[in-house]
Amino acid sequence: MGEFELIERFFKRAALQADVGIGDDCAIWTPSPGHQLAMSADMLVEGRHFLSTVNPRDLGHKSLAVNLSDLAACGATPRAFLLSLSLPRADEVWLSAFTQGLFALADAHACELIGGDTTQGPLNVAITVMGEVPVHQAILRSGAQVGDDVYVSGHLGDARLALEAFRGTVSLPQSALELARSRMERPEPRTALGVSLRGVATAMADLSDGLLGDLGHILKSSRVGADIQIAAIQNLMLTRGLWACPQDLLQRCVLSGGDDYELVFTCHPSQHPHVQSLSESCGTPVTRIGRITSDPRLLLRSEDGDVLANTFTSFDHFS
Amino acid sequence: MGEFELIERFFKRAALQADVGIGDDCAIWTPSPGHQLAMSADMLVEGRHFLSTVNPRDLGHKSLAVNLSDLAACGATPRAFLLSLSLPRADEVWLSAFTQGLFALADAHACELIGGDTTQGPLNVAITVMGEVPVHQAILRSGAQVGDDVYVSGHLGDARLALEAFRGTVSLPQSALELARSRMERPEPRTALGVSLRGVATAMADLSDGLLGDLGHILKSSRVGADIQIAAIQNLMLTRGLWACPQDLLQRCVLSGGDDYELVFTCHPSQHPHVQSLSESCGTPVTRIGRITSDPRLLLRSEDGDVLANTFTSFDHFS
Repeated sequence: MGEFELIERFFKRAALQADVGIGDDCAIWTPSPGHQLAMSADMLVEGRHFLSTVNPRDLGHKSLAVNLSDLAACGATPRAFLLSLSLPRADEVWLSAFTQGLFALADAHACELIGGDTTQGPLNVAITVMGEVPVHQAILRSGAQVGDDVYVSGHLGDARLALEAFRGTVSLPQSALELARSRMERPEPRTALGVSLRGVATAMADLSDGLLGDLGHILKSSRVGADIQIAAIQNLMLTRGLWACPQDLLQRCVLSGGDDYELVFTCHPSQHPHVQSLSESCGTPVTRIGRITSDPRLLLRSEDGDVLANTFTSFDHFS
Repeated sequence: MGEFELIERFFKRAALQADVGIGDDCAIWTPSPGHQLAMSADMLVEGRHFLSTVNPRDLGHKSLAVNLSDLAACGATPRAFLLSLSLPRADEVWLSAFTQGLFALADAHACELIGGDTTQGPLNVAITVMGEVPVHQAILRSGAQVGDDVYVSGHLGDARLALEAFRGTVSLPQSALELARSRMERPEPRTALGVSLRGVATAMADLSDGLLGDLGHILKSSRVGADIQIAAIQNLMLTRGLWACPQDLLQRCVLSGGDDYELVFTCHPSQHPHVQSLSESCGTPVTRIGRITSDPRLLLRSEDGDVLANTFTSFDHFS
């Protein structure tokens, strides 16, 4: 199977919204009037972002999911993506499973593959995603205000727990391992919640490097600090219902685990009922975990108000 | 040096045309009124697209050049790009040279880095480029008409000649090797020519896999054939003035060498003087090499009109 047959068989689909899709030098796209583009790129490397044993269907899903998560974090509606894929060989079984996972998620979000590149080399999946947002309604990291509430969506720490289990540093019951693994390998981008928070959230980011690190980006961009209630994060780990996770491991996974692809966002306290209602209509739980402060530090507080030592670090590819 | 310091030191620059550049979850971009977007992605893998001995400055240049070449092939004006970079390690000397080559070309084309990703892994450079073209003026592969002239820009075959020299299958004089190597490692995207051909060329593609293969894409998309004059391609190899290239090697390099990043395009014969004048104003030579036919084959003809056997194949990553 040659390169063009590979593209034709596994990747070429009829252009839906694109004026020109796969098959020319460029894809041609007409932007929606009154909208800005939101664009993001993420690259997944074997051994770094996924294990060689990963199910290719899950890899196809996750490769797009982490990109859609960036769009959600800006409140942008997904529109299209480009895929650059380096493969050791043209393996039909692998490609079939990979594209099933990829296109199932793409179709669920009406996000169209419009172009890309295939080449031979070490397994590497690079996606650039394009979304649209009404002019001046993108939710940036820089808008958090002193007094705003801090929220996170969904569940945190389970992906890191799965990684620790695969590394052998923790032993989990089978049910907890399966749930944690699915959180690691099949994250669900919070697109509906992200889009619904336009005009509501003052700042937002997605959680890929860990809560403290990614919230830290919001604080730095907004030139504010935050008080986070340690009690509020106790129930964020989904697998916690299935086994007795030691407290220090739970805190480490939730606060700095990474790979969560949930949203952290800030809102004026008056929006609390509205946020709850959006959470329900999107089917995505949200938890209020703290408050934005003028003190430019990120502090963790116990229930009686004491500041806890912060020994957590976020993920860094080169440190 | 950590990941965020790496981005800050080597890649973050003030946003020029972007509403939001590097540093949020997405880049935010306002499209120009009355324009469509043209988007393309290319991935360069060590050992496959470049040798491990490549000068990182040249690699930075070439990684963007091959993407700009795709925009040129649609007649699109470069606007912005996203870079996903997998690096074995954060090497400051390497990064400094790579970004010098990258940004020199980006600045020359007013094409702004608006986002991307950095990760640790085997050396891999994936770029997605975005350009703009006035509505319905993109030059596609599908527009060639029977009777149109076929042109190529610049020079062909030298990049492949350099590759053969590095492989040891041919021995070149030093001056020819240096010239061929610079054609391989520092291709110049034909942006000015591509943009100026809007409304003039009926079809266009860039030459990355070899003339016969890439012209073949135009013929297939346009459902036509072509007669190519073998005499017209004799002088396309730039290094030919520096050594006596054997005729069979010259033809192989020019017709199916690949890695040229020139343009192949078709125009109504009445446009010939106009094409010549655009070529002069852009400072890019063009050569008329044949004509579009209704016979859906790509035929090579000798000066006395005989059809030559076509034994040339174009580059394919998986065959």
